[in-house]
Amino acid sequence: MNSKLLEEARAFIYTCYSEWGRSEEEAASRFEEISREVSQTGTYTHHYEELQHGAKMAWRNSNRCIGRLFWNTLQVFDERDTAAPEGIRDALLRHIRYGTNEGKIRPTITVFAPDSAAEGTNNRRIHLWNHQLIRYAGYETGAGVLGDPHSLAFTRTCMELGWRGQGTAFDVLPLVIQTGDAAEPVWFEIPQEDVLQVPLKHPDLSWFEDLKLQWYAVPIISDMRLEIGGITYGAAPFNGWYMATEIGARNLADEQRYHMLPKVASCMGLDTGTNASFWKDRALLELNHAVHHSFREAGVSIVDHHTAAQQFQLFEQQEKQCGRPVTGDWTWLIPPVSPAVTPIFHNQYENTWKTPNFFYQDKPYK
Amino acid sequence: MNSKLLEEARAFIYTCYSEWGRSEEEAASRFEEISREVSQTGTYTHHYEELQHGAKMAWRNSNRCIGRLFWNTLQVFDERDTAAPEGIRDALLRHIRYGTNEGKIRPTITVFAPDSAAEGTNNRRIHLWNHQLIRYAGYETGAGVLGDPHSLAFTRTCMELGWRGQGTAFDVLPLVIQTGDAAEPVWFEIPQEDVLQVPLKHPDLSWFEDLKLQWYAVPIISDMRLEIGGITYGAAPFNGWYMATEIGARNLADEQRYHMLPKVASCMGLDTGTNASFWKDRALLELNHAVHHSFREAGVSIVDHHTAAQQFQLFEQQEKQCGRPVTGDWTWLIPPVSPAVTPIFHNQYENTWKTPNFFYQDKPYK
Repeated sequence: MNSKLLEEARAFIYTCYSEWGRSEEEAASRFEEISREVSQTGTYTHHYEELQHGAKMAWRNSNRCIGRLFWNTLQVFDERDTAAPEGIRDALLRHIRYGTNEGKIRPTITVFAPDSAAEGTNNRRIHLWNHQLIRYAGYETGAGVLGDPHSLAFTRTCMELGWRGQGTAFDVLPLVIQTGDAAEPVWFEIPQEDVLQVPLKHPDLSWFEDLKLQWYAVPIISDMRLEIGGITYGAAPFNGWYMATEIGARNLADEQRYHMLPKVASCMGLDTGTNASFWKDRALLELNHAVHHSFREAGVSIVDHHTAAQQFQLFEQQEKQCGRPVTGDWTWLIPPVSPAVTPIFHNQYENTWKTPNFFYQDKPYK
Repeated sequence: MNSKLLEEARAFIYTCYSEWGRSEEEAASRFEEISREVSQTGTYTHHYEELQHGAKMAWRNSNRCIGRLFWNTLQVFDERDTAAPEGIRDALLRHIRYGTNEGKIRPTITVFAPDSAAEGTNNRRIHLWNHQLIRYAGYETGAGVLGDPHSLAFTRTCMELGWRGQGTAFDVLPLVIQTGDAAEPVWFEIPQEDVLQVPLKHPDLSWFEDLKLQWYAVPIISDMRLEIGGITYGAAPFNGWYMATEIGARNLADEQRYHMLPKVASCMGLDTGTNASFWKDRALLELNHAVHHSFREAGVSIVDHHTAAQQFQLFEQQEKQCGRPVTGDWTWLIPPVSPAVTPIFHNQYENTWKTPNFFYQDKPYK
C-alpha cells in the first residue's frame, strides 16, 4: 500500500516540480520529506501549491473534456480543514457564487479533506451525494416523469431525507452532505439568489419562450474523486462553463432526459410522422441555437461546439509545444451536433488515463 | 502456413454448415475433403454456396457498417474463372448494371479469383485499382482542386496511363484493372449510360439546383479484400445503397472533400463570420436534406440516418435471437449528423473483427 502511494507521490512531485522549472534536487528533497511523513503517518499532505497544480493537471488530463485549453486558469479553493456539514455547505455556496460570478463563469474547484489513506486513522471522508451541485429534480408521476429523469433516484433519496420540492420541472435539488462519522447525510437548500438560471428563448422563433424551458448557468460536477500523487480527494467539486450542445443536444433533447425534440418540432410545424423531414435534426438545431443565444443574451458564459473544437486544437498545439502527449476519449470529445464538421472527428486520440485525474466513484445512495 | 489455413477453413466450414442447419458429420466430411485438397495443392476452392454464404457473413461481420440488417439479401456473382482484363471489365459492368437496377439498388458482390495461397503456384492475383467502381476524379489546378480531392492520386495515375477526363467537377474515373501476370494495369471507360447519377435539388430552396451538385447512385467499394475461411479474395467489389449523410455530411461537406458548406451557407444568407449563427450546422442539414430528397425523387434507393439506425437496432435484435454477439465500431456506426439522437450513440459495441470479413489492403499505386 505505502509503496504504491510513494511511487505515485514521487511521479507527481517530480513532474510537478519540473513543470514549475524547479531543480531535481528540490523535487528530491520534497520527496524525501514526503517519504518521512508517509512512514510516520501512513499518508502525506500536499502543500497548497501542489494541490493547486495537481488539480490543474487533473483537468489537463481529463480525456473526455473538450475545454482543457483553460486548465491553467483553474481557481483552487483549499477546504481541507473544513469538517462540519455547515462549514462544507458554506464552502459549496462560496464555490457556487465565485464560479458563477454573475455569469462571467470562472473555472473553479473546491478541494475538501482527502479520504483517509491509512487504516486505523480517523476517517474524515466527506461524501457529496449530489451529481452536480446545481441540478434539477425528477419526479415519477402517473403521467411520466416531471423534471429531469436523470435525477429520479437522487430526488427520491432527498425526499426520504425530508426534502420537498416545488413540484416544477426545474426544482433545484438541495446540497446533500455526509461526513465520515455520521450515519446519515445532512441536506441544505441552496439560496435561490445563488442559483443563476437562464430562461430559454430563440432569436427568430417567438413561440420558443412559451415552452418555458430554462437551464442553470454553471455545471459543477461533484461526484467524482480527484486523485493527485496517490492521494484521493473524494469531495472536490469543479466547474467550467457549458458547451451549448450539453444542454441543447443532451439534457433537453435525449429521450431519457427532458425529451423536447417532438414538442419543438411540432411547434416548428414539421412533419414528425416521417424521418424524411429530418425533424429531429431540425428541432435539435433550433434547441441548441436557443440555448446558445439565451445564455449569451443573459451574459452567461457558454461556448458553441465549433469554437470549443477550435480551442481544443489550440490546446493540442500548446501541449505539443510543451512536449506533453495529449490523451483523449474521441467518443466524448466529438460534439453531439455535426461532429464531422469539427477537426476532432478526423483525429485519433490515445485514451490512456494519466494521473492526476478525476475518476468516477460509487454512489453513496441506491 | 497450411496449418493456419486449415484452422481458418475449419472454423468457417463448421460455422457455415451449422448456420445452414447441416449436421456436424457433413461439416466434418467437407472439411476432410478440404484438408486433402490443401495437402495436394496448398489451397482449396470454395463451393459456390460457401462463397455465397461467406460473403454474406463478411457483410454481417462488418463492424463499421450500419446497414447490416440486409446481409442475407446479398447477390453474389462468382467470377473466379474470369482472368483476362476484358472479361473482368465485363463482369464489373454487369455488377454496376445489376446493382444499380435503374435505381432500385440491389446489394451485390462480384468475387474474382483468390490471391494465390501457396508459393510456386501460378499467381492469378487480380488488382482493382479503383477505390469505388464509380468515383469522381480530382484535379490539382492553380485555383485549388477541381472535383474530388480524395481521388487526386488515383486521377494522376489514370492520366499517366493515358486516360483523359472532361475536366468537370464530376468526371467519372475509368475502371483500372491489373492481372497478376501484367506489369501495367489496363483502363476502360465506363459507358455513360451505365452510371446512374442524381442531380441535387432541395424541396424548399429553389436556388439549390443552381449549385449544379450531383452524386452517383451506387457506392461500390472495390479496394478491400474479402477473407473467407483463410482464402483471400483481393478483388471482390461490393455495394449496398447510400445513407444520405455519407454524401451530404462527408463527401460534399468535408473540408478535405467538396467543401460545400461555406457556399451553401452563403446562398442561405447565413452569417458565416461567426460560429454563433450555427451556419455550418444549418448548411449541413439542408445539404443532407437535398441529397435525401433528390435521390428519392429520382427513384434511387437511399436511407436517412434515423431509419438506418432503427434498422441497425433490428439487426442487433435479430442477431441476438440467433445467438450471435454483434460486434461494431461505434466511431463509424454513429452518423455524422445528430448522432446522439440515434440509439447507437447510447450503446457500446465490442470492436473485435470476426472473419469472414472485408479488410483494407495496400494501394497498388503511389
